[in-house]
Amino acid sequence: MNELEIVERIRRMARRGADVELGIGDDCAIYRPRTGEDLLVTSDQMIEDVHFRRDQKADSIGERALARGLSDIAAMGGEPRLCLVSLAVPARMDAWIFDFFRGLMRLARRTSTALAGGDLGRSKRIYCDVMVCGAVARGKALRRDGARVGDGIYVSGRLGKSWERRIEPRLALGRSLMGRATACMDVSDGLSLDLHRLCVASRVAARLDRVPVARGSSVDRALNGGEDYELLFTLPEGVEAPRGTSRIGTIAEGRAGSVWFQGRRLAARGWDPFRRGG
Amino acid sequence: MNELEIVERIRRMARRGADVELGIGDDCAIYRPRTGEDLLVTSDQMIEDVHFRRDQKADSIGERALARGLSDIAAMGGEPRLCLVSLAVPARMDAWIFDFFRGLMRLARRTSTALAGGDLGRSKRIYCDVMVCGAVARGKALRRDGARVGDGIYVSGRLGKSWERRIEPRLALGRSLMGRATACMDVSDGLSLDLHRLCVASRVAARLDRVPVARGSSVDRALNGGEDYELLFTLPEGVEAPRGTSRIGTIAEGRAGSVWFQGRRLAARGWDPFRRGG
Repeated sequence: MNELEIVERIRRMARRGADVELGIGDDCAIYRPRTGEDLLVTSDQMIEDVHFRRDQKADSIGERALARGLSDIAAMGGEPRLCLVSLAVPARMDAWIFDFFRGLMRLARRTSTALAGGDLGRSKRIYCDVMVCGAVARGKALRRDGARVGDGIYVSGRLGKSWERRIEPRLALGRSLMGRATACMDVSDGLSLDLHRLCVASRVAARLDRVPVARGSSVDRALNGGEDYELLFTLPEGVEAPRGTSRIGTIAEGRAGSVWFQGRRLAARGWDPFRRGG
Repeated sequence: MNELEIVERIRRMARRGADVELGIGDDCAIYRPRTGEDLLVTSDQMIEDVHFRRDQKADSIGERALARGLSDIAAMGGEPRLCLVSLAVPARMDAWIFDFFRGLMRLARRTSTALAGGDLGRSKRIYCDVMVCGAVARGKALRRDGARVGDGIYVSGRLGKSWERRIEPRLALGRSLMGRATACMDVSDGLSLDLHRLCVASRVAARLDRVPVARGSSVDRALNGGEDYELLFTLPEGVEAPRGTSRIGTIAEGRAGSVWFQGRRLAARGWDPFRRGG
């Protein structure tokens, strides 16, 4: 198949969003903003032999490629609107492309995300980059820079989960935290690194008492693993936490970004492609 | 340097846009739409050994990576607002990363495009994907599906240009065509393939009489080369063409997508990574 034929087949698989005036097939997609909304934009790469292996299921890779961006939208309290998917694959992998998009569209439908465009290319290894655009009421987005000393630190679900599971980005939880959480972000690179980042942004320190560990996982993996797609957030003392979330510690005074776990300094050891040296 | 340090240095190089409420550093960037604007979104990949070689200048590669998306915004008549840049590079190429962003930011500043976020990763070969978001007055975007039989076909500048040049996406020309052109797109994969696509979208055929050839280039390269970043558009008979553009033919009846050049059928032989087999 040539590019036009592949794009046409993906176009037929794609979900068209209510606010997407023009989808796949022109130089750009057109999105018509609703009155009083701010737009959230994020992009995340998935690279063969870094984030996944070719022998893993293509539909799971496609689902995960979109989940990463949706989790970022959830972390800001937004609703997803559309995505653009850039994908480069080796020759003779046309069937893989359609499996990838089948998995991606499964999650797109569950979350009302339109596939509005993207770019197809060739490369020696599989590479993809997904941009997600979401919306939030003007000025209401949750950010990671508002945590204050004395706030409780919370996380949704359990951490250290395995790769082989269906991902549910915490979109409803994120929206429910608007106007309540002082800071919020998603746990995608490991709790120790992500909490460090939240504390750097908010210029505070953190003391962790406990961490909810996924069945079959370990405390070390819950602290330093990645790909959890849970939300990490802070609430002022006295504000009730949503169901399905656990308090894991307290924002404290101290050097911006330092994190303590059960009395010991916790190194930020989560997923950093540049520290690990690729 | 670790990822936080690299991102912080890129953040200091970045231009912050007037409508970008929150730039690099959180889960998402926040864009506040103006009243009455539609948003245009597009993404384009640049892959080592497909679109460029590692021994080419990093700043030119960065500039070109952004130019591709800006040219798509120009083709719809839009003004660029922001971009997200996803980049994956091998280890020990930190200096290359900053050269890449220096070139990209040079074009971003000239075109008032904010660098609002993105994603950094590691890979064996250099890979990048740039998403550009632009804006256009509601309902006024130029599309490629409105060409009608009898319209004149026009192109800006000259085609078949070499890689080694400063790129100027035709943003002012695109805006000047709003309300005049019946169809518009950019020439990025070669005139023969791109005009074929415009004709497929508009369900018409085209007859080309001539093509403006860049100095030192050839008719073949002007018809079938790529990376021109000029605008291809159609005007109803009697509508004056903007300066710096040339009439090259006429929209005709015939099989949708068929293109004739000086009386002979022209094959769509421009840049298609899937037809060429990568």
